Amino acid sequence: MTTTPPPPARPRRQRIEDTLAMLDRLVDCWVATSDPESGAPQLVPLSFVWDGVTVLLSTSASSPTGRALVATGGVRLAFGATRDVVMVDGDVEVIDAADLSSEDGDRFALRTGFDPRSLRARYLYFRVRPTRVQAWREENELAARDLMRDGDWLDD
Amino acid sequence: MTTTPPPPARPRRQRIEDTLAMLDRLVDCWVATSDPESGAPQLVPLSFVWDGVTVLLSTSASSPTGRALVATGGVRLAFGATRDVVMVDGDVEVIDAADLSSEDGDRFALRTGFDPRSLRARYLYFRVRPTRVQAWREENELAARDLMRDGDWLDD
Repeated sequence: MTTTPPPPARPRRQRIEDTLAMLDRLVDCWVATSDPESGAPQLVPLSFVWDGVTVLLSTSASSPTGRALVATGGVRLAFGATRDVVMVDGDVEVIDAADLSSEDGDRFALRTGFDPRSLRARYLYFRVRPTRVQAWREENELAARDLMRDGDWLDD
Repeated sequence: MTTTPPPPARPRRQRIEDTLAMLDRLVDCWVATSDPESGAPQLVPLSFVWDGVTVLLSTSASSPTGRALVATGGVRLAFGATRDVVMVDGDVEVIDAADLSSEDGDRFALRTGFDPRSLRARYLYFRVRPTRVQAWREENELAARDLMRDGDWLDD
């Protein structure tokens, strides 16, 4: 969608490599949910930690996003910028702060600079296991943007 | 959510000014919708044009986002980066390409480098009229993040 021609589309193997590097590098992502009653779209930025397999998020149990994640278990995450995106659909596991391993809790706090365990308000953790992953930069990468389907990384 | 203290929270007047400047400057935004049948969250980056009052988007009539915008009329938009965000909830007007003024169509094409009128696939335009606008950078700006409610910019 630019007037100058974009670089050639990356092969899938390269996109998967770039995607894993982005998940390792970034601290914040966009979290889209649907209001469980009205169905209205919700969207907020949240900090996260990627452990190589799952995305760990945390937000207040009473926030719209927190309530939607508990009620629906559905989420779509976006990472990166609008011309270099990674999109993740996933299944959500809700974890009470008391049930999170101290290793995971410490890692989250160290990575994000934000420790939900230290707050008086009730925060929950959410572990998102990707089922579909897509990545693209410009229009020419929209084809073949699927990198994972049904929880499995695709081979070339 | 950083370990170094953020700058002081901006007053509302400054946030409104920064928000309008961002809407003028950017070309892409994040578009969150809900699947009209399953209620599943949807999220994609799309190009847009801001005319000072409304956000004009376009996407294929058959895409998940296109179908959701037609069916539900509800959308939440995010502009900027995760530590300097503008969030917009709005009402959606669906516009057939044939019904868009040529001035608006030309402006969209010039701005985005993408002219849906030239495509064989059926694209629709969507005019989003903001009803709520929020802007924040770091944690200390979460309070007083509302800049518009019920379609009206708030006074200081």
